Amino acid sequence: MESVNIKKLAQILNISISTVSKALRDSHDISKETKERVIALANELNYQPNPYASSLRKNKSKTIAVIIPEIDNNYFSLAINGIESIAQEKGYHVLIYLTHESYLKEVALTKLLHNGRVDGVLISLSTTTTDYSHLLELQAKGLPIVFFDRVCENFDTACITTDDYDSAFNATKHLIDQGCKKIAHLMISKNLSIGNKRLAGYQKALLDYQLPEDETLIINCTNDEKTDLALIKNLLQEKKPHGIFAAVERYAIGTYQACKELNIIIPEELKIISFSNLQTASLLNPSLTTITQPAFQIGKEAATILFKALDEKRFQLKNENIVFKSTLLQRESTSK
Amino acid sequence: MESVNIKKLAQILNISISTVSKALRDSHDISKETKERVIALANELNYQPNPYASSLRKNKSKTIAVIIPEIDNNYFSLAINGIESIAQEKGYHVLIYLTHESYLKEVALTKLLHNGRVDGVLISLSTTTTDYSHLLELQAKGLPIVFFDRVCENFDTACITTDDYDSAFNATKHLIDQGCKKIAHLMISKNLSIGNKRLAGYQKALLDYQLPEDETLIINCTNDEKTDLALIKNLLQEKKPHGIFAAVERYAIGTYQACKELNIIIPEELKIISFSNLQTASLLNPSLTTITQPAFQIGKEAATILFKALDEKRFQLKNENIVFKSTLLQRESTSK
Repeated sequence: MESVNIKKLAQILNISISTVSKALRDSHDISKETKERVIALANELNYQPNPYASSLRKNKSKTIAVIIPEIDNNYFSLAINGIESIAQEKGYHVLIYLTHESYLKEVALTKLLHNGRVDGVLISLSTTTTDYSHLLELQAKGLPIVFFDRVCENFDTACITTDDYDSAFNATKHLIDQGCKKIAHLMISKNLSIGNKRLAGYQKALLDYQLPEDETLIINCTNDEKTDLALIKNLLQEKKPHGIFAAVERYAIGTYQACKELNIIIPEELKIISFSNLQTASLLNPSLTTITQPAFQIGKEAATILFKALDEKRFQLKNENIVFKSTLLQRESTSK
Repeated sequence: MESVNIKKLAQILNISISTVSKALRDSHDISKETKERVIALANELNYQPNPYASSLRKNKSKTIAVIIPEIDNNYFSLAINGIESIAQEKGYHVLIYLTHESYLKEVALTKLLHNGRVDGVLISLSTTTTDYSHLLELQAKGLPIVFFDRVCENFDTACITTDDYDSAFNATKHLIDQGCKKIAHLMISKNLSIGNKRLAGYQKALLDYQLPEDETLIINCTNDEKTDLALIKNLLQEKKPHGIFAAVERYAIGTYQACKELNIIIPEELKIISFSNLQTASLLNPSLTTITQPAFQIGKEAATILFKALDEKRFQLKNENIVFKSTLLQRESTSK
């Protein structure tokens, strides 16, 4: 039996090969009617794309890996949607690996990517990663790597981030503007670029507005909800801060829970602002003031750059350092 | 140079091969000290696992596919964590495919899985899928398929679900107990098993408690936030229901937004209960009464059953029909 390919479908329907290809990928460029005609014929003739044979021919896996610390997190789920929007357009598969913030898992997972399993890697580092030799090894094998959000700055490759330092400065300044004199920072691991930048922005704002820095107001949060809740409750009881700047959404949720348990009223007794992509931020009691990162766009851009490196031999990943702006959305949790 | 394998590492450290293997996967069974010793030696000797060679030998991809409608959804992100907890233990890769509720994408994606790209498939159907021949074709090629949550009931394979009918009955009964006489249902697509079961449970409760059924109180929600918000606002203004039972979390969030815009006070003027795995349900204004599914366990069980089918030739997937119980968590949104 003659095998059916895209060219054959295009001939029968009298449309271009690229239109058939796009219709089969459910691309937005193609009308519903055309898609239905294409899919009907494809089904009738039992058309089956053969990506494996094509990947053998090109010696490519047509697969990219996305290594992230966790998935039950609005930032990463939005970023994945962004990555995946590009990968589907390109006809690529997306392998998702979760490190659960474990350096050992991150090392073990990257070792699985040797030997041509994937053509490229998008990664956001775990909080416990301080050595990068596992990633240097991957890179040495010719595998393009793009960092997003939690990046390694001393690594010759593309980094897609947000303006963490400026955003942290603005968040802290916002609390000062709203009348807070004693401001605590719930920080994410010092191992991470975002941890250090958000801390530095907070410290600079205190300095600029002549508020004393107090190390006991900087809480090193962990990756364990119960531990973090205990740390936050202790902070609220012992130090009685006027304001809290949380480096990630999870710590803001912990603060809301701590306040509920301790009968502390937000924003009257404590104001709070947090980096967050929480969909329900505006529906919380009270609604949460956030610094919102363009997570979908970050994922999309990271994937776009990775594909440029895959498509163009001379493309220099190390020249790509893209910084997106985050948005401060003021809500009730920082009202005067 | 002699190549380093797990056996060699075990010999040098004088521990079992299985301990080394588990330590490299960061298994919970192994102490931190042992893990550190193993990883240190593995790094020193530049040990690299060779999954590709092993998969060629066994003619297996060591990869499973997870096909889901969306990822920015707490149910699915928790389910993926459950799936992935088993896959990592088994040393398998997880390919995640998003259909974005499009039947055409679902068909296109499953066609990519022919030709040995994966060893098995876990799937939760898109809302627009009414024909299953693309999955029957996969199954005919010997690929084991396990459905979870959104299942196809006329398919000879394992289905992992929750007690949708009973939970919907209890949710509606709860609204009746709290004094609601006119109860609306925000339903998910009639194409889906969960859509029909949740509707049927709602209808049965109305019947048992002698409340008249009114078709205009049943809203067929879509996958578009704006459309759904308009539908819900129209319902609240035109029909003035006392209570709402939402089939999925997204519709509950839409209802909160609609009430905010229309100045309708929850729970005084409208009570609401929803299927939801929202982490912030207890922190919303007011806190949301939920039917919470054990999403992590569902993912874990679905993966466990798939691996049984991969490990045991005689294992009969079609005999596996597992129904987990959901939990009704009463909060302020349904207070009297």
